[in-house]
Amino acid sequence: MEKIMIPPLDLEMADKVRAGWANMDKPAGSLGKLEDMVVKYAAMTGKALPEKIKTAMLLMCGDHGIAKYGVSAYPQEVTMQMINGYMRETAGANVMARHSGADVFVVDVGTTFDLSHLQKVHQCKVAWGTEDFTQGPAMTQQQAEEALQVGMRVANECIDKGYNLLETAEMGIGNTTSTSAIVSGFLGIDPELTVGRGSGINDERMKIKRQVVIDGLAKNKPKLGDAMDVLCKVGGYDHAGLAGMIIAGAKRRVPTMVDGVNATAAALLAYGLYPECAKYMLVSHLSSDISHKKMLEILQLQPIVDAGMRLGEGTGANLAVVVLQSALDVYNKLSR
Amino acid sequence: MEKIMIPPLDLEMADKVRAGWANMDKPAGSLGKLEDMVVKYAAMTGKALPEKIKTAMLLMCGDHGIAKYGVSAYPQEVTMQMINGYMRETAGANVMARHSGADVFVVDVGTTFDLSHLQKVHQCKVAWGTEDFTQGPAMTQQQAEEALQVGMRVANECIDKGYNLLETAEMGIGNTTSTSAIVSGFLGIDPELTVGRGSGINDERMKIKRQVVIDGLAKNKPKLGDAMDVLCKVGGYDHAGLAGMIIAGAKRRVPTMVDGVNATAAALLAYGLYPECAKYMLVSHLSSDISHKKMLEILQLQPIVDAGMRLGEGTGANLAVVVLQSALDVYNKLSR
Repeated sequence: MEKIMIPPLDLEMADKVRAGWANMDKPAGSLGKLEDMVVKYAAMTGKALPEKIKTAMLLMCGDHGIAKYGVSAYPQEVTMQMINGYMRETAGANVMARHSGADVFVVDVGTTFDLSHLQKVHQCKVAWGTEDFTQGPAMTQQQAEEALQVGMRVANECIDKGYNLLETAEMGIGNTTSTSAIVSGFLGIDPELTVGRGSGINDERMKIKRQVVIDGLAKNKPKLGDAMDVLCKVGGYDHAGLAGMIIAGAKRRVPTMVDGVNATAAALLAYGLYPECAKYMLVSHLSSDISHKKMLEILQLQPIVDAGMRLGEGTGANLAVVVLQSALDVYNKLSR
Repeated sequence: MEKIMIPPLDLEMADKVRAGWANMDKPAGSLGKLEDMVVKYAAMTGKALPEKIKTAMLLMCGDHGIAKYGVSAYPQEVTMQMINGYMRETAGANVMARHSGADVFVVDVGTTFDLSHLQKVHQCKVAWGTEDFTQGPAMTQQQAEEALQVGMRVANECIDKGYNLLETAEMGIGNTTSTSAIVSGFLGIDPELTVGRGSGINDERMKIKRQVVIDGLAKNKPKLGDAMDVLCKVGGYDHAGLAGMIIAGAKRRVPTMVDGVNATAAALLAYGLYPECAKYMLVSHLSSDISHKKMLEILQLQPIVDAGMRLGEGTGANLAVVVLQSALDVYNKLSR
């Protein structure tokens, strides 16, 4: 991995915005986390607050070798069906994105499907899905680095176009299984505490899912706290793309709104690669998935929406973008 | 009080919408409370789901006799300043309302100020503020009933105009003190557990605020669980207006989005007067004020935004309206 410098937060700008909130005709601190969010956003960007948040929702797609074991309620074909839905703009992700004013960029980082006929998809396929990580590493280090670069490249293109907020979204059947393995591998937490119901699986699939994670960790022995090693051994291309995007954003002081449990696992990897990245993250909601809370504690992120969501695809992040925009509107209007 | 029939929820409609969620191309239940909200909305209205939520934010204004003791960080004049802000549409409440698409209706239920020159204010003054409840009842039963009628009348006007969601908002310096007395009086909870920091008061004012609540309860001895008695003895005109609005909405199957701690105290009174009202309430956020959680438990309401807000004026409710509209958009789009 190349050396990347993540700039420090602009604490003067943060103080200025904090003073702006304090000088308003309203009880001090009465907008709670909304005030914190705006202060944090200013500290991240180091610029005067914008009127409008212009959000790029990067929907990183990747398939998972372990999907064949039936760890999800859905077969791998659903990855393709969902991507078709994004193209038709009929999926939940599109509807929520429209609501928050986010533009959606679908990126093929590593699906098992030929998406080359879909002109709107960013064609960045690193591989046709990950390898089955119960039998060996999910990807090579070169593949992992390529996938991180994909995320960085697409994020940079968006930043060049003037987007001032990145938003994570992901699609890939089996990805919460990989997420559990990432969290267990990176933090050394028993899979019992990281394997959740994902897409809403039954007890039988839950047993398989847990065993797949246990087997993957036993086979690969990812190094505790070594994000690159964990990514290669049990990660996904969706995770890698998102981690790259977060890193590129942090480097250029563009915050990322992190969605649910998969996106947060990617954020954990970005943090593992470049710890300073965590300063450029905002988090949306508390997922109902089991490992989310633990990760948010590590990243020191506080969710503002508590709606028991576990759809992924950036759905929760969009709600938080709306909240951020509301908070910004209040700031811009009342601080004049 | 006249006898008011609150219709039962339409459980068939709820089942229909629940089935709609279940039949979508997404993991069952994966939108968590967003799904519940839409199901509940359908059960309340008993109608096919609308494309758009048309929200009337009723901003009930009333002053409090006990404000003279310095229970708030602000003097009573601030009630007037804030109302002027609503007229100029520069207050936080206006900004948030604009964001959620809500129309704001400012109602003078009982301020100490002459607002008759403000044409946009609904002129419904029942009295020039409440009496000092440490010396006797805050209002007479006739005044309380009149104030409830004000809320009902304005709500009915809005419903006649086609609004399909009511939203609570309130203004009145000193109102969290009255709220604490309502919660303690109605539920029999020690003021130690119901008196919060309100507008962000210091320890000295906190001591005064607590004593005012204790004195008010000792002097008036409101009857446990008797909402009308509690309202008359320690309530406010803002509370009464909101309670009336909630009752009128419930009667006509129009849900109310309940905001923070003052609005929830009003909701508690509405529930005390007509228990079936609680079925027509949605709640927005968990306020950082001490008594909010307890009230939400009683009303069996689950907040979806957890942002440590305590501004009141409907600010939190507007965020929840945006969430509800997002959820509705997903439902309408994906169930086709």
